[in-house]
Amino acid sequence: MRSQQDSAGGLRHLITLDGLTRDALTSILDRAESYRRLPGQPAYEGRELAGVTVANLFFEPSTRTRASFDLASRRLGAHVINLDQQGSSRVKGETMLDTIYTLEAMNIDVFVIRDSEPGMPEFLIDHVAPHVSVISAGEAHVSHPTQGLLDALTIRTHKRRFAGLKVAIVGDIKHSRVARSSAHALNVLGVSDLRVVAPEALLPAMDEFPGAQRFTRIEDGIAGADVVMMLRIQKERMVQSAALDDAAYFRDFGLDSRRLKLASPSALVMHPGPMNRGVEISSEVADGPRSVIREQVNNGVAVRMAVLAAIAVTLTRHRRPL
Amino acid sequence: MRSQQDSAGGLRHLITLDGLTRDALTSILDRAESYRRLPGQPAYEGRELAGVTVANLFFEPSTRTRASFDLASRRLGAHVINLDQQGSSRVKGETMLDTIYTLEAMNIDVFVIRDSEPGMPEFLIDHVAPHVSVISAGEAHVSHPTQGLLDALTIRTHKRRFAGLKVAIVGDIKHSRVARSSAHALNVLGVSDLRVVAPEALLPAMDEFPGAQRFTRIEDGIAGADVVMMLRIQKERMVQSAALDDAAYFRDFGLDSRRLKLASPSALVMHPGPMNRGVEISSEVADGPRSVIREQVNNGVAVRMAVLAAIAVTLTRHRRPL
Amino acid sequence: MRSQQDSAGGLRHLITLDGLTRDALTSILDRAESYRRLPGQPAYEGRELAGVTVANLFFEPSTRTRASFDLASRRLGAHVINLDQQGSSRVKGETMLDTIYTLEAMNIDVFVIRDSEPGMPEFLIDHVAPHVSVISAGEAHVSHPTQGLLDALTIRTHKRRFAGLKVAIVGDIKHSRVARSSAHALNVLGVSDLRVVAPEALLPAMDEFPGAQRFTRIEDGIAGADVVMMLRIQKERMVQSAALDDAAYFRDFGLDSRRLKLASPSALVMHPGPMNRGVEISSEVADGPRSVIREQVNNGVAVRMAVLAAIAVTLTRHRRPL
Repeated sequence: MRSQQDSAGGLRHLITLDGLTRDALTSILDRAESYRRLPGQPAYEGRELAGVTVANLFFEPSTRTRASFDLASRRLGAHVINLDQQGSSRVKGETMLDTIYTLEAMNIDVFVIRDSEPGMPEFLIDHVAPHVSVISAGEAHVSHPTQGLLDALTIRTHKRRFAGLKVAIVGDIKHSRVARSSAHALNVLGVSDLRVVAPEALLPAMDEFPGAQRFTRIEDGIAGADVVMMLRIQKERMVQSAALDDAAYFRDFGLDSRRLKLASPSALVMHPGPMNRGVEISSEVADGPRSVIREQVNNGVAVRMAVLAAIAVTLTRHRRPL
Repeated sequence: MRSQQDSAGGLRHLITLDGLTRDALTSILDRAESYRRLPGQPAYEGRELAGVTVANLFFEPSTRTRASFDLASRRLGAHVINLDQQGSSRVKGETMLDTIYTLEAMNIDVFVIRDSEPGMPEFLIDHVAPHVSVISAGEAHVSHPTQGLLDALTIRTHKRRFAGLKVAIVGDIKHSRVARSSAHALNVLGVSDLRVVAPEALLPAMDEFPGAQRFTRIEDGIAGADVVMMLRIQKERMVQSAALDDAAYFRDFGLDSRRLKLASPSALVMHPGPMNRGVEISSEVADGPRSVIREQVNNGVAVRMAVLAAIAVTLTRHRRPL
Repeated sequence: MRSQQDSAGGLRHLITLDGLTRDALTSILDRAESYRRLPGQPAYEGRELAGVTVANLFFEPSTRTRASFDLASRRLGAHVINLDQQGSSRVKGETMLDTIYTLEAMNIDVFVIRDSEPGMPEFLIDHVAPHVSVISAGEAHVSHPTQGLLDALTIRTHKRRFAGLKVAIVGDIKHSRVARSSAHALNVLGVSDLRVVAPEALLPAMDEFPGAQRFTRIEDGIAGADVVMMLRIQKERMVQSAALDDAAYFRDFGLDSRRLKLASPSALVMHPGPMNRGVEISSEVADGPRSVIREQVNNGVAVRMAVLAAIAVTLTRHRRPL
């Protein structure tokens, strides 16, 4: 895989957080903070992406993530085109490059891509022109880098530090790109007590999540945690045999207010959304005083603005002269 | 239901015309007149919605009303995202609030919502944040407030007054949100001779349309009318047993040039569109000299601009400080 | 059919290249050159369409052509609404005019229309208001004027002249609107040696392509050619009996590097896209040094900007005063 950064260290692509230093992540979080506006405040509007065209290529349905990228792009002055792609992976494989080259020839500068199968983002960064960037908006179970960043920003806002934090990620770890990207971000930023908590069948392979403790009982996993990050049950990624009964799952692994008492009294409750209420989380907790779930969404727009703005600066250096 | 106006009397939501005074309606119409541009004139372009993000949530297909809100929003400088929603009402009921809270967290300021079932707009205004507004773009058979306003504006433009006008609303009154909102607007604005004209099976319940005369023969209903407002046959809202034969309906209740002679010689012919030509109206009348049907469409954009601009002023007062 | 130009010679519509003079075509190509930016250069951004609203009405799916018009419009400052239309031709025929009149009443200035059946663009220019323009983005097998212009621009950029050029158009001539529009443009611009090359079953009627030589063997058709313009096999336009076997077609009519040697050593290879690699063209040729296929896409945006900008100037003269 080509590097995500150019020779001057500027962010050129973002398809994984692997390989990005603590300084690189911190720089994105700092920039995101400057773009963040609370609900009710006027949204940040800038010209950082003036003259830039962003294409959203979504091979997997997504209302919220696409809206988040769309708004982030337009509030910084970009043109955005939304191209919902359909068809089997075979069809995609055969024609994807022609589609990309066609869009490049229309002076599109940034591709935001979401796909339910692994491999497309890396394939793209190996093939796009030097003046074109690729951002992953979610790749199969593999990676969701802007989600990892927005989770980190949400934690930093409340805890002001990463060192010494106990963070429990709970639920369908095995199928979760969110868990992979968030755990990676938190590791790099200095969290040393990271726990993955799942029923046996939903734990990841043993060589994944290095350094994390593994738990198969939620009560053990969240004990004393400063952050409890619940995951969405990804029914669409499970094979038939792993099918779960919602009520049984909630009984064994759902986060309700009784279980939340096992965590730190100041614990944050997070969820990447959309929530299955009553399956992985109770409404009482989701809407309760420890929940920062809506802040995650708010930070999501800010983080995507920050990534896009950083990439736009890099692209400027790689433009052809007029 | 929460009030649609804030304590200072500013328009905060618009999901029904009920409760709005004559002054409130007149103020919207006046503002709409200032935004109106005839076809062939350059459209009004302003910055009244600069920094405002509008989300169009359409649970019911609509090309024209969505285009009208979309253009109204963008010509005043807003960002617009279009979110076509699908799924049963049960699914919607369960997840709608999470969707709304998610979009609020992305600093979306105005929700424009259309739904084929009643209740969602009121549900939303009871739940959105203080700095968020809801506009109905059509709610089941219940309400279509911007249609009521554009009908009123079209009449005012031609007749310069409401007092003393004879207005006949003709057709499928029972299933018509247009009839309900337009009749209400005209009542408030001073029309005293209002007639609802429909076959027995399509007349509304007796306690609806207070003060209106009821007719079951179109010849009686439009006699001497200054305005003949034809309605679209809403086949999609009728139960099977009420199914109508198009030719029979036209014979008994269609507006053709022969029947139009019964109305005032200066009568306006209106229709909210899309028309079923040859069912509720003949092409000769629809395209004839008394028809103001295209003016209604033109006024529709202006009225939606006016509503959005009025709401933006109110929202500014309820913003959180930076 | 009404004229595509107004009495002052300004471009008002563009649904066919028929009737446009060499000067008119050259003027569009010159303007397009001024808008063209290579991939990697910042796209041209202007205000030529400020205050103009463009509606894309696509009755036939098209990702690339719609994206091209969308970007061309927005980079010149227009508002764009995309209206994907569905339904049978009968439904369309009955309601198209009401749709157009409705959109005109919303102060839409330009309709960009693509349709799989012939006739709609001409129908529209016979009916739209004096201040409204129609551009065809592809009409059945009949016409694709902006494709003809972008092909001409691509050739002019490399060859600096049209006189004396040998141009071979190869493949499914019979069903190709691209072939018809490109051949017409090249004829008007001065190409005298034009060849249509196809299997017997895919040759056009004898009275089409006047002045062009007809070949049924690709080897004969492309011998010494300065430009080899390959066409997409239009499976969707073929009747069942003409169904082709991909491998057999490639063997008999595909352009590979061996056959390309028969053309001039400086021959340009063109294709309107999307390509069926391995059917009408080999990847080696499509991605090889003679290919200008991506330049065609790049020129496509520039040509559409030029057409839109020329039309905007004309429209200004036909506006109603405020």
